[in-house]
Amino acid sequence: MKMAILGFGVVGSGAYEVLTKAGYPVKRVLDIRPHAELGDVLTSNFDDILNDDEIGIVAEAIGGLSASYAFVSKALAAGKHVVSSNKHLVCHYYKELHELAQANGVTIRFTSSAGGGIPWLFNLKRCVRCDRITKVMGIMNGTTNFILDAMIRDNRRFADALAEAQKLGYAEANPSADIDGNDVARKTAISANIAYNTAVSEQEVLTFSLRNFKKTDLEYIDQKFGKTIRYLGYGTKNDGSVSVFVEPTIIPKDSLEANVNKNNNMISLFGDVVGRLSFYGQGAGKYPTGIALAQDMIDIAEGDTALSYAPDAVEVDNGACKRKYFIRTTADMPFEFYDSVDKIDDVYYIVTKEISVSAMHEAADLMLEQDADSFFAGFEY
Amino acid sequence: MKMAILGFGVVGSGAYEVLTKAGYPVKRVLDIRPHAELGDVLTSNFDDILNDDEIGIVAEAIGGLSASYAFVSKALAAGKHVVSSNKHLVCHYYKELHELAQANGVTIRFTSSAGGGIPWLFNLKRCVRCDRITKVMGIMNGTTNFILDAMIRDNRRFADALAEAQKLGYAEANPSADIDGNDVARKTAISANIAYNTAVSEQEVLTFSLRNFKKTDLEYIDQKFGKTIRYLGYGTKNDGSVSVFVEPTIIPKDSLEANVNKNNNMISLFGDVVGRLSFYGQGAGKYPTGIALAQDMIDIAEGDTALSYAPDAVEVDNGACKRKYFIRTTADMPFEFYDSVDKIDDVYYIVTKEISVSAMHEAADLMLEQDADSFFAGFEY
Repeated sequence: MKMAILGFGVVGSGAYEVLTKAGYPVKRVLDIRPHAELGDVLTSNFDDILNDDEIGIVAEAIGGLSASYAFVSKALAAGKHVVSSNKHLVCHYYKELHELAQANGVTIRFTSSAGGGIPWLFNLKRCVRCDRITKVMGIMNGTTNFILDAMIRDNRRFADALAEAQKLGYAEANPSADIDGNDVARKTAISANIAYNTAVSEQEVLTFSLRNFKKTDLEYIDQKFGKTIRYLGYGTKNDGSVSVFVEPTIIPKDSLEANVNKNNNMISLFGDVVGRLSFYGQGAGKYPTGIALAQDMIDIAEGDTALSYAPDAVEVDNGACKRKYFIRTTADMPFEFYDSVDKIDDVYYIVTKEISVSAMHEAADLMLEQDADSFFAGFEY
Repeated sequence: MKMAILGFGVVGSGAYEVLTKAGYPVKRVLDIRPHAELGDVLTSNFDDILNDDEIGIVAEAIGGLSASYAFVSKALAAGKHVVSSNKHLVCHYYKELHELAQANGVTIRFTSSAGGGIPWLFNLKRCVRCDRITKVMGIMNGTTNFILDAMIRDNRRFADALAEAQKLGYAEANPSADIDGNDVARKTAISANIAYNTAVSEQEVLTFSLRNFKKTDLEYIDQKFGKTIRYLGYGTKNDGSVSVFVEPTIIPKDSLEANVNKNNNMISLFGDVVGRLSFYGQGAGKYPTGIALAQDMIDIAEGDTALSYAPDAVEVDNGACKRKYFIRTTADMPFEFYDSVDKIDDVYYIVTKEISVSAMHEAADLMLEQDADSFFAGFEY
């Protein structure tokens, strides 16, 4: 069974190099740009791949939604196995792609779409076969972890740390997808989908931005609670529903997550049988993400073609998961859930009772109307 | 392809429960003790399994060497795939079992033999397909980690922490296999074998006991270096050889390993392409180890029967890997490698220059002759 890669950008070229070096030849690469080093392997015509019966594995590393969806759905319909590193595609069309794979008796794999080089989704899926997952949780975005680590270890301001992340190529010129949580929301949705065999949409993931986090918040959290902070995605199993959310989260300094430095990622599952399993590594980059894409392709090439099935529809209920929160705001709100409040100058520093995730995010919307600079974080452990 | 389990002790019964609950029926269980709940599944005659052509997967969870080797080698010779949780067996007969598997066109898997519930060996093997591993390293023994964690966090003495580990069932009445490093040595050898496609023997792993570690050592390491300690197994790739050793190791307090608490394990690989990947979880116990055994069986049942091949013979050279060491001894030795020495009362606290692992272990043998209480630890990072 031969392989093709769609897209010869950062991830596609990384996977191509890994596969070629390891002795797994790639028959075709689709790209509209010239790449002399690819010779006859390069094509700009997808039909050269679609109509080639020798090619049984198509890896998509184009990114975006429209072209990638057109190519991937055609490949599945033609009975080819599909591998993708595209979290946007996998999250947006999760149900459709799995239905199409099932209808055509093929597999779709996307380990590299969440966690970069970490074999997270692959191992999560393996665990689900004989364990009941109750929580998935983790640091899934290297840019925001780099920013927090620089603020905590090097005493940097948020804006300076972000600028350095941009200089190092970790963050885009427009950093919104990273710092506002959209990137983590997609990875959280995909992780929850595998953990709970469902199809959560990106819009169902309640997401609070890291953008308003300040050094003074860090100092307060350190002095008042003796704790630190990370930006975490969560998928929890409730009784008959799941909760999915992305929040700045206050964690003990001696937790594993608190010691994940620079732009690394760590994602964990909690199973009834196996307990907690955590997976750590590089969450992005040409070679880590490229090798993760290549590994999925090799699994299929070596005969591991377990079919993909359409997911069930498990209800998303962010009212069913409760935790305590820290809030910093100047908004003057009647908020019945307060457990304790400090007022320093005009700023309220609040700890809530245990309230639901949805209640907190609704309250945050109101707070942000009064004080656009408001911040909150959940408490873990 | 049907399954059988040899041995219905802690791990075998854990795997049986997991498989049965997940809908993977086990056709036969071999045990010499009565287990009424197993009904007709139980047999005390291995031939009932060996001669049953429906049984294609035989999982060994007996432990020890002689009976397990007899059963496993007969199963492989009969063309059955074998899974084992027995680190003693896998380490001792690594080459023979792989040759036998290759000769009979079957696979042998043993994820649960190192790391308990952590899918460590499984992921390491997957990585080796298309990456070059330069180091494997980790906390592979829950008992010694429990002892160190109790000494560090709860200010306990070694003997008290060990007694508590024994009370909790983590350590045996004779704790030598754990605290003298034999358990870690076997897991290190097996990990190095997969990482470097070789067959290191347990005897080639240079191992220094944790037995002589004292609270005063911890205090010195904390005050002098600002660091902490863990008990680590190492397999490193040199130019044309590998080094394999087990040592107490001084590590930064903000490293991931330093924050692995209680009896948990964390094992890492370092690949040229993927960078560092770390895997964390429960390193022992009925359900974690049982599910890891079950997962290997399910992989095979679902068609992932990639064959096992006889390993190469890569030279073990513990002179080729160098690091700095901390030594505490009353022995008065001419030691040309000292970088700095403190003398407090009659005790020398030494930091060496970078010296080879074999030089340090040879020097330790001499030191222990003069001062049976001597201690050393390597420096990581």
